[in-house]
Amino acid sequence: MPFSTLAELRRAALDLPAPDAGARADAAARQDVLTKPQGSLGRLEEAAVWLAGWQRKPAPVLEAVRVIVFAGSHGVTAQGVSAFPAEVTGQMVANFAAGGAAINQLARAAGATLSVVPLDIDRPTADFTQSEAMTEAELLAAVSTGYDAVQADTDLLCLGEMGIGNTTAAAAIAAGLFGGRGVDWVGRGTGVDDAGLRRKAEVVDAALAVHAARLADPLGVLAALGGRELAAIFGATLAARRHSIPVVLDGFVCSAAAAPLAKLAEGGLAHAIAGHVSAEAAHRRLLDALGLKPLLDLGMRLGEASGACLAVNILRSALACHSGMATFAEAAVSNR
Amino acid sequence: MPFSTLAELRRAALDLPAPDAGARADAAARQDVLTKPQGSLGRLEEAAVWLAGWQRKPAPVLEAVRVIVFAGSHGVTAQGVSAFPAEVTGQMVANFAAGGAAINQLARAAGATLSVVPLDIDRPTADFTQSEAMTEAELLAAVSTGYDAVQADTDLLCLGEMGIGNTTAAAAIAAGLFGGRGVDWVGRGTGVDDAGLRRKAEVVDAALAVHAARLADPLGVLAALGGRELAAIFGATLAARRHSIPVVLDGFVCSAAAAPLAKLAEGGLAHAIAGHVSAEAAHRRLLDALGLKPLLDLGMRLGEASGACLAVNILRSALACHSGMATFAEAAVSNR
Repeated sequence: MPFSTLAELRRAALDLPAPDAGARADAAARQDVLTKPQGSLGRLEEAAVWLAGWQRKPAPVLEAVRVIVFAGSHGVTAQGVSAFPAEVTGQMVANFAAGGAAINQLARAAGATLSVVPLDIDRPTADFTQSEAMTEAELLAAVSTGYDAVQADTDLLCLGEMGIGNTTAAAAIAAGLFGGRGVDWVGRGTGVDDAGLRRKAEVVDAALAVHAARLADPLGVLAALGGRELAAIFGATLAARRHSIPVVLDGFVCSAAAAPLAKLAEGGLAHAIAGHVSAEAAHRRLLDALGLKPLLDLGMRLGEASGACLAVNILRSALACHSGMATFAEAAVSNR
Repeated sequence: MPFSTLAELRRAALDLPAPDAGARADAAARQDVLTKPQGSLGRLEEAAVWLAGWQRKPAPVLEAVRVIVFAGSHGVTAQGVSAFPAEVTGQMVANFAAGGAAINQLARAAGATLSVVPLDIDRPTADFTQSEAMTEAELLAAVSTGYDAVQADTDLLCLGEMGIGNTTAAAAIAAGLFGGRGVDWVGRGTGVDDAGLRRKAEVVDAALAVHAARLADPLGVLAALGGRELAAIFGATLAARRHSIPVVLDGFVCSAAAAPLAKLAEGGLAHAIAGHVSAEAAHRRLLDALGLKPLLDLGMRLGEASGACLAVNILRSALACHSGMATFAEAAVSNR
């Protein structure tokens, strides 16, 4: 287990590599001589340069693209915060294993391999309106599981989650890290009605009051208001950075889970992009707070890394252009 | 040649099939029982239902995905409306043939076959500030070329263009069809400076004044202010509709070229989606006028069907989910 104390974890979160400036500069210089008006591929050009920096090579590749979906169970479902019953978390993990979920299809379409990591799904975290969701030991175990799930030879890592109740945990984390009340951060999740939405906001407000003393510490926020799959995403995001692996975040829950790294270390999420902006109401607000500009906006709100996987297709196209296009000189095309 | 008179063309443009309502309904019903909250795949769900309607089957496929890029030369380049010299049109056609352009890479990444159709590129259209860009015979020939370029067994058609000077033609068409002045519709194209931008607006205003008598007729707008590759895109869009083939439009020029069909017939572009919204300033305004909501927004402004091809990846993922996911009953997952 990579982290047996909070101090070890905190130290790792402050020891983060920068991207390779030379690889970035070489990639940007190549973009400027390819047969197109400079900048006319927009975010595809930015993506190629970003991948070059984190893969530390001017011609980045997307061979080992890996998707990890972490699953966890939430005691806060006792408060009636989800449109679906809590047992759906385990049922969906079985659906992932059988290949029947959206993410199975989307990972295959993106040329990515999918791993699903359930974290004690038969043992929900504590209801965080009553006590901290996770003890320190539980937090460290979940973060370590996420950290160890990342293979160092990964070209691109997509992160996602499954956990009935976890949009409420994500809203609580976002409020804990960035301020505001429940009403600012809750949304309809899998589809709660107006009464459910009010209940989610009240639950977040209650949790913020109970755990007010923990909110100054991003790791305290994660332990008190999070869940195992969120802590694992945090751990995986940290591992990716330390291995210099670029990361595609998924929706609201995934972004909230990674957010403590941005609070712990300036530029802590520079190796991550937001694959999409979710239809979950507060995702855009959270991305704004993190300074992340989403690649896609398709009205999706499923989680499971679904939006991250879609973004992989765009990144593949970006690299196809970066590596495959002729330069003005090679093609004998007049530059302006 | 399918159209030897304007009357024949006009008749064809008014004889357009509707999508298959049964296939749409079946596809929508399937989406509602797949293992995800209803609606949570957002535009992926809409896309699957849209493809089902136009392919006239509840389980649409994307096997024969074809990209056609039409290229043409514009007399209006004499007015200094482009950042690149006019000979780049022919040079880029050679680059397409050699496989070195962005669209070569993007079509391959999208699993699509690419055809490039140059239309008399050594013989520019007339400078439309002086006379009509095309005679009636030239218009009909270009529309017919585009129409005949569409194979009836196509599952999805992506349209794009190459033609130095054609963002000026597109701006003039948009103004001719939807009103407004040059300044409302011109943009920087391949990268003109402020003086070039003012010149483009003046050129459009001059053309609108010269051809005021033609603006009430969408085909008159296309002949007077268009170009051969734009007329060909119009013809291909019409052919696709008459074969019930769904179409992905590309950027500003492509959208302007297809727009006369929406003016000629109510719902004339119902079989088309906007693959993306371009960074070319007026594209969003044009899509709003056409009632088209773009799938992607990646700051691209290249043309060549580049944005349309990127959207194909999203449509593939949409169908992967539509065809591959388990239902709640199949996966024994509790529905809400």
